[in-house]
Amino acid sequence: MAIYMNNAATSWPKPPGVAQAMYESIIALPGAANRGGLSAFNLPGMVREALARVLGVTHPAQVVLTANATHALNLAIFGMALPRGAVVLTTMAEHNSVLRPLYTRSQKDGIRRVLVRTDYQGRVSLRDWRAALEAHHPAMVVFTHASNVTGAVNEVSELAALARGAGAVTLLDASQTAGWIPVKAEAWGMDMVAVTGHKYLLGPQGTGALYVAPGLALHPHLVGGTGIHSDEEEMPQEMPLHLEAGTPAEPALAGLLAALCWAEANPLDLKTENEKIVLTQTLLEEAGAEVVAVQGERMPVISFMVPGYSAEEAGDILSMADDIHLRTGLHCAPLVFAGLPGLAHKETIRISLSRFTTEAEIRELAQAVQAVAHVRV
Amino acid sequence: MAIYMNNAATSWPKPPGVAQAMYESIIALPGAANRGGLSAFNLPGMVREALARVLGVTHPAQVVLTANATHALNLAIFGMALPRGAVVLTTMAEHNSVLRPLYTRSQKDGIRRVLVRTDYQGRVSLRDWRAALEAHHPAMVVFTHASNVTGAVNEVSELAALARGAGAVTLLDASQTAGWIPVKAEAWGMDMVAVTGHKYLLGPQGTGALYVAPGLALHPHLVGGTGIHSDEEEMPQEMPLHLEAGTPAEPALAGLLAALCWAEANPLDLKTENEKIVLTQTLLEEAGAEVVAVQGERMPVISFMVPGYSAEEAGDILSMADDIHLRTGLHCAPLVFAGLPGLAHKETIRISLSRFTTEAEIRELAQAVQAVAHVRV
Repeated sequence: MAIYMNNAATSWPKPPGVAQAMYESIIALPGAANRGGLSAFNLPGMVREALARVLGVTHPAQVVLTANATHALNLAIFGMALPRGAVVLTTMAEHNSVLRPLYTRSQKDGIRRVLVRTDYQGRVSLRDWRAALEAHHPAMVVFTHASNVTGAVNEVSELAALARGAGAVTLLDASQTAGWIPVKAEAWGMDMVAVTGHKYLLGPQGTGALYVAPGLALHPHLVGGTGIHSDEEEMPQEMPLHLEAGTPAEPALAGLLAALCWAEANPLDLKTENEKIVLTQTLLEEAGAEVVAVQGERMPVISFMVPGYSAEEAGDILSMADDIHLRTGLHCAPLVFAGLPGLAHKETIRISLSRFTTEAEIRELAQAVQAVAHVRV
Repeated sequence: MAIYMNNAATSWPKPPGVAQAMYESIIALPGAANRGGLSAFNLPGMVREALARVLGVTHPAQVVLTANATHALNLAIFGMALPRGAVVLTTMAEHNSVLRPLYTRSQKDGIRRVLVRTDYQGRVSLRDWRAALEAHHPAMVVFTHASNVTGAVNEVSELAALARGAGAVTLLDASQTAGWIPVKAEAWGMDMVAVTGHKYLLGPQGTGALYVAPGLALHPHLVGGTGIHSDEEEMPQEMPLHLEAGTPAEPALAGLLAALCWAEANPLDLKTENEKIVLTQTLLEEAGAEVVAVQGERMPVISFMVPGYSAEEAGDILSMADDIHLRTGLHCAPLVFAGLPGLAHKETIRISLSRFTTEAEIRELAQAVQAVAHVRV
């Protein structure tokens, strides 16, 4: 039996109903999106409402539907009007879907990307953050809710408050956390929040969203047909269409809606889940793994190495001999490794649990890791 | 019984197997895209190969997978390096997914968008095209394979040859035609071809592609994680990853692959289909509709008006009283109306057939139109 521990890449299994909703979306007559709103069933609108609840925002029309988090982050980062020389502050824990758009803007538009270091757990310290804000006066800050390598959750409310106090526009990358750690975009005063639908929101790949606070004007990075105001050269001014060009991915939205509805009816028991995470960390350490230990608020994501092996070597054994689904390497977040102790080679084996992971699976993982560690020792 | 005649918006029904493939994609353990290629089953690669056959190209790695045609056209148009003042030649028949990106570049980057008029059928004449190429020396041309309003197919091979002869990079929008009219990107010497997966390719919404000829360097308009070369600031140089950021929409790709395989096994009988189109045009005219008549190569797309009604009025009656799925308005192609006779109000009722449309449905449509025409007369 395969053991699936790659939920930070994409969650599996999906909740009951997701596959069926997608199946029925294909079988059913095409809906509202293609009939000018004649039908009472407005799928994109229902997804927006469910996402607004997940993200803690009151205006569903401010939730822009995207193909994935990368698409959402590109809309946010390329959509901001920033003069040459403007500083965008970000962190060493970011994914390439943040680092690369900012690098591109630095090369193309002359903005300055300033990186705040992250610590031995992959977190930004408030002290470093404050110092960077004071030193650089950023026009915008972009930071991840949690490291996708270590699982450490940032003090997002405080980071946002400090950034806003310094006059910066705030963009939160909640791709790793949405569906697991509550996101409170309005309470935290976020200007923008990007999410993906297929990780801890438990929906299908091909979905994502960008929340944009009312009044924040983004320039549309992707433009095209909108179904209304078709005789105008520019995208409509009203949200969300201002930032939504082209045909939406209806079957994937149907699957995401099913997942969001299921999760509302089946709230996550974080206490139980956190016990599973502690158990995993403990058993891995007992098995001889070198775990990137994380204290405090965290995701069910754990990075480790097996002494005597590269991440790829040990990961391949675990993957092929024991059929454990995990990921090895840089995890698309190359800079966070600078702060992590003993990871000169900038790679880890990463496992990521879900609410469907069982204790038996966790014990099997630990046994498999122990067997790998013993062969070499 | 509903009559579905809105296939130019999205095709329905999809072939057998599409819904099931998407269902199974959700149920099955996540595949190759998330395991670093360990699995022999590489879904994106198989889709690329099937699309390469559909588009008439020999290098599947040059087929970039996108979320829709708008995404593909944005990658192509924003990705081209064009100096200020460079001319991009396009046509009045284009969709807003071409017109708006070009307008945006004209405002932002100072390129010049030059529009070639289209005729009373929605086609570009070779004479006008040649004259515009000589007058403007465009760096790039963008043109649609067929008008999405009238169904008229352009003389694409000749248009491309003339443009290439004039030294322009060629971008074909085959969103309306792929899966119905054979696309021969290499034989026609196309530099780029954009398609959507959910129209006549019969796949799900949330899919599309951009073919980029080997050697043509596009700047990536969307950047982010690629799973390889993660420690580099820029997107990988190798195709297709150079232009593919973020997690692919695997369930939708599974559906598209099922559709493409089905279509290969069940080739379209264009002779029979063209007889259905002629029958539809004839019956609509007999029913009292004012049809935008098209001669020569065409798509199964017909625009018409019912005398005495606006397009919306007549369309609403047909839609609500007779449950005929159709579309009214500008069809996101506002400029083609300038050339169409008697359409001062820039709107039509558009019906679009598929290979699944029956003669009985066509006759029902004609009867319904006749009833509407009679009420007012």
